[in-house]
Amino acid sequence: MDIDARRKADPEHWKLASAIRVLAMDAVESANSGHPGMPMGMADVATVLFRNHLKFDASAPHWFDRDRFVLSAGHGSMLIYALLHLTGYEQMTLEQVKNFRQLGAITAGHPEYGHVEGVETTTGPLGQGIATAVGMAMAEEALRAEFGAELCDHRTWVIAGDGCLMEGISQEAIGLAGAQKLGRLIVLWDNNDITIDGRVSMSDRTDQLARFKASGWRVLECDGHDAADIDRALTEAKAEDDRPVLVSCKTIIGFGSPNKSDSAKAHGSPLGADEIAATRAAYGWDGEAFAIPDDIAASWRQIGSRGAEDHKAWAGRRDALSTDSRDEFTRRIENKPNPQMVSQIVALKAETAEGKPKVATRKASENVLEALNAVMPENFGGSADLTGSNNTKTGQMQVFNAENRLGRYVHYGIREHGMAAAMNGIWLHGGFNPYGGTFLTFTDYARGAIRLSALMGLPVVYVMTHDSIGLGEDGPTHQPVEHLAISRATPNTLTLRPCDQVETAEAWEIALSQTTKPSIMALSRQNLPTLRTTHKDENLSAKGAYVLRDASGGKPAAVLMATGSEVEIAMAARDALEADGTPTRVVSVPSMELFRDQPAAYREEVLPAGTVRIAIEAAVRQPWDWLLLGERGREEKSAFVGMEGFGASAPAPALYKAFGITADAVVERVRNML
Amino acid sequence: MDIDARRKADPEHWKLASAIRVLAMDAVESANSGHPGMPMGMADVATVLFRNHLKFDASAPHWFDRDRFVLSAGHGSMLIYALLHLTGYEQMTLEQVKNFRQLGAITAGHPEYGHVEGVETTTGPLGQGIATAVGMAMAEEALRAEFGAELCDHRTWVIAGDGCLMEGISQEAIGLAGAQKLGRLIVLWDNNDITIDGRVSMSDRTDQLARFKASGWRVLECDGHDAADIDRALTEAKAEDDRPVLVSCKTIIGFGSPNKSDSAKAHGSPLGADEIAATRAAYGWDGEAFAIPDDIAASWRQIGSRGAEDHKAWAGRRDALSTDSRDEFTRRIENKPNPQMVSQIVALKAETAEGKPKVATRKASENVLEALNAVMPENFGGSADLTGSNNTKTGQMQVFNAENRLGRYVHYGIREHGMAAAMNGIWLHGGFNPYGGTFLTFTDYARGAIRLSALMGLPVVYVMTHDSIGLGEDGPTHQPVEHLAISRATPNTLTLRPCDQVETAEAWEIALSQTTKPSIMALSRQNLPTLRTTHKDENLSAKGAYVLRDASGGKPAAVLMATGSEVEIAMAARDALEADGTPTRVVSVPSMELFRDQPAAYREEVLPAGTVRIAIEAAVRQPWDWLLLGERGREEKSAFVGMEGFGASAPAPALYKAFGITADAVVERVRNML
Repeated sequence: MDIDARRKADPEHWKLASAIRVLAMDAVESANSGHPGMPMGMADVATVLFRNHLKFDASAPHWFDRDRFVLSAGHGSMLIYALLHLTGYEQMTLEQVKNFRQLGAITAGHPEYGHVEGVETTTGPLGQGIATAVGMAMAEEALRAEFGAELCDHRTWVIAGDGCLMEGISQEAIGLAGAQKLGRLIVLWDNNDITIDGRVSMSDRTDQLARFKASGWRVLECDGHDAADIDRALTEAKAEDDRPVLVSCKTIIGFGSPNKSDSAKAHGSPLGADEIAATRAAYGWDGEAFAIPDDIAASWRQIGSRGAEDHKAWAGRRDALSTDSRDEFTRRIENKPNPQMVSQIVALKAETAEGKPKVATRKASENVLEALNAVMPENFGGSADLTGSNNTKTGQMQVFNAENRLGRYVHYGIREHGMAAAMNGIWLHGGFNPYGGTFLTFTDYARGAIRLSALMGLPVVYVMTHDSIGLGEDGPTHQPVEHLAISRATPNTLTLRPCDQVETAEAWEIALSQTTKPSIMALSRQNLPTLRTTHKDENLSAKGAYVLRDASGGKPAAVLMATGSEVEIAMAARDALEADGTPTRVVSVPSMELFRDQPAAYREEVLPAGTVRIAIEAAVRQPWDWLLLGERGREEKSAFVGMEGFGASAPAPALYKAFGITADAVVERVRNML
Repeated sequence: MDIDARRKADPEHWKLASAIRVLAMDAVESANSGHPGMPMGMADVATVLFRNHLKFDASAPHWFDRDRFVLSAGHGSMLIYALLHLTGYEQMTLEQVKNFRQLGAITAGHPEYGHVEGVETTTGPLGQGIATAVGMAMAEEALRAEFGAELCDHRTWVIAGDGCLMEGISQEAIGLAGAQKLGRLIVLWDNNDITIDGRVSMSDRTDQLARFKASGWRVLECDGHDAADIDRALTEAKAEDDRPVLVSCKTIIGFGSPNKSDSAKAHGSPLGADEIAATRAAYGWDGEAFAIPDDIAASWRQIGSRGAEDHKAWAGRRDALSTDSRDEFTRRIENKPNPQMVSQIVALKAETAEGKPKVATRKASENVLEALNAVMPENFGGSADLTGSNNTKTGQMQVFNAENRLGRYVHYGIREHGMAAAMNGIWLHGGFNPYGGTFLTFTDYARGAIRLSALMGLPVVYVMTHDSIGLGEDGPTHQPVEHLAISRATPNTLTLRPCDQVETAEAWEIALSQTTKPSIMALSRQNLPTLRTTHKDENLSAKGAYVLRDASGGKPAAVLMATGSEVEIAMAARDALEADGTPTRVVSVPSMELFRDQPAAYREEVLPAGTVRIAIEAAVRQPWDWLLLGERGREEKSAFVGMEGFGASAPAPALYKAFGITADAVVERVRNML
């Protein structure tokens, strides 16, 4: 069907969709930067979705029971900005659209969660949207099972492009969604056959329908420029309850642009004034840039209020709950703190100081979770196929799957990246605190999604065990050395490396008290003694670093700083130095980031000037330099005991010795410097 | 067929395969650590492969025209160690097998390239093997096209498990191999239905045969414990020339273990003495631990010498070449330096100092590659679908694909992880210098494979453009801030961030001169002036940092250190400070790692004590502390101009201003401190 025939086939639809296309062209042109082709190509699909299917109320972006709409192909951000503007989201003024990609505008280059209402998750790094949506759909299933369909009953819609589907993370998402039979997840594939380098066939010949089907998805197809056909496909997709659905929407990138459509030229650059004029002519669209005729604007506004009734009815059902039920439901969907958390932590700390168990911090973490999961129905755990090693599944936890939506433990499979993205989605949906485990080294595989946890400020918890050469025989492929540095270098991320069960409990308290940043918990494989043997209710780890054992007489000549499994080494070194007549302080540093946030006076108190200073950590030195070399104007002799390169394959004690991370080595350094 | 029937069906095969199983059980038991189940399950397949199909000569592990065998399921390392020992690889003595996973042994927990002959690539992080093998198979096709089948004519075989196939990287590998129609790549899938957490169906319901088929693979099946059926499938696989082949080998993990087979219990722990005894009984195997009966040992040795004739014939064909052809072929397959590289670099530097172009360093990199690719047939470029942005394709380069194996440019698709792993494979195969591009931020997606480049010590080159907030409007999802810190924290990795076209040429010279480490080149999107306007043949960047412009009078009161696009800012600040009467030195730091390797005297000369010291880099501070705070015993006032958090979406100049990375800000800091 040629463009004129399409225009005549459904004039009302044509005008609505053209409004999106024109705004996208104009905004990209005005910014002289951006991606017009995708919004132009998917405008028809998005129009049908918002007009007839998506459950939303533009006047209430945070209405809990809305459908979630995820633009996985985030470079097409003008698609969502145009939709938010046209349907009447208050924040998304025409001014904002005109300021597309400018400093201070909410219309960022790629859609950012928290930056603008109506954007459910940050996208742009390809494949993240679809993988995050899997978590949203899981959370919807879980919350519906727990609270009933009258309070939670919505779908998750995704628009994904060829780029999303080529990224490996998409396979992890597809596999997980298929295994979980997420019947409320619908992916609309912008099947336009174009990537930046050219035709998709230059780099991929995958039959995507067959691929999704292979992982248990229902697959549908439609002509992505035929409103009736799109509507049929979306109606069919909604009727499917037992499987996630892929809808292949056959589209033309830059649809309507006479000289740039169906080519990479429409992808990532402004069309240019001449081409925009030609395209407007093809659309039959008059008027100035950014101008939307009143009748079309009014129709879009009406679409924006389509869900108001549903919203009101839902609020009525919520308000009809008993006060207690309503309060708890509200607490849950707003991801608010659990009032019982801290007392559970304090009790476990007291018990630990008394019993002094010698356990690996990964096991300590399991002990903490046993206490917490019993009173925190929001905790939603999992592991990327290392359940027994990460100690993430507590005794009373049932498995969450298609047969049991009341389970709270996910076997994510061998999918670190997919797990991390799903955790983001679970938190974004609301209702649950996701935590998930793998080996610390394999944060490498999940980096793309972990960075988005940080960028979005989501307080998800990464339970990263086997956090050093202490994992032993598996060898250097499995031994993290640079990963603590990576985590600490990543903005808005809390790195927590506790030294015993008391600090592990404190680390969990800190992580679960966060509201704006993720935590990466680095936990040992190997057993560690209890070092905090005097109980205090106060969370000492919350200051990031503190005096664990002071020098005799309180005036240290040497200060030993360490984290996690190396604190035990520092304590042994202190004993030897004190016996020798050297007053030595041990400072435990469970979180460098938290210590950096302390007032200078506290930092000075913990790490006084004029001492020998040693840091001990089985990882690279890079993040330690600021503590070792002193802040501005200081003068300290210093040394570092740790790793300079990759590890090796051997039992852990042999490795510690081979790499010189021992109490003897520390003692020797101090003696040499004094 | 029960185990007795299988034993009787082919007694010779049974004995050969049992030898592998017994060694695997015994070694894991002796180490009290490791994974017996996979070698026991895949012993039949591996026996048929080595006995009847794999082209290899155990007496010459480096024979170039051998088939490549990649154990992607690297945790099953005892499978390959047993095979290497039994077939007679000199290094792999029984002593080494007995020292499995012990310090100093070549039998590391996971197979490590360079650590032991016969291991073609390091595996263990799941999915890496299959993705690396794709690169090997590409290199084989390319080299065969260039030098002819008489010199290069072999296959790449992979054993992959369910874990490999669940990782996202596998999809990138499968898609790339399918698009490239790699008919010499054969993946043997250890289809045992078990992961660490339990049955595969707990986390995945993917029909793998349908999935591979969807990406253009031929798929075959066999009973993985029936030697005849395996042989039939491998024979069929070898007959396929136009598509990569997946062979599903239906196996039982821990095959033969009466109480642990077909369960996760056989996966990652020793079986225990009793179970080993019971399993040996089931195999009909007598004798002490590690003992192999002489007749079986002799049969295996014979298998190991099966390829000696082929090897000799190949050597004859190579020796029949003209001296020049032979020398060039040998240089290529040994990945030796190109004798013309340095003169090309020097000429371009001279021309640049003369012409003083103002170009982005990504464009400068393209200019360098234009000069190099013309004389270096070994350069094998590509991009993860950002060819025009990464500037990786030079004018004369043809595209490498199924239709043109003489092409040297790969459209990798939107597959950063798959690209990085393929680059590792291309280098490991021999014959080519792979380089590949994406945005610096998306090293996140490729971290798993980049870490293996470093761990294996492969001098591949990552061309990472858009290296800071300088990329502008795409926003914080695309703006690296922690990635220079990540690269610098990663052991055995060279981070290169040149400031102009001269330094970019030097950076390429450095990268292409490496023999034991990868380079990550961080290149700007935005134009930068030529700052090195006086030509020198010498590669000044090779010292890591050097005085780019000294203080007037040569006695600096302030030293400004910067990299890449921020050197221009340092130069502007110097002008202002000098005008003010402050003698100011600018130090360019194209590679912190190289500077760290310089003698202390040189470091002191470049960064003298007693000055104000400022570092300028649009990235997090972490890697700078050692330079800012001074080394032991020093006292400097210092400050950092850079990033403290994520970026934002806006044009680049607005962002530099908003984040205070400006010459004015630098001047102000210096004035405040003096």
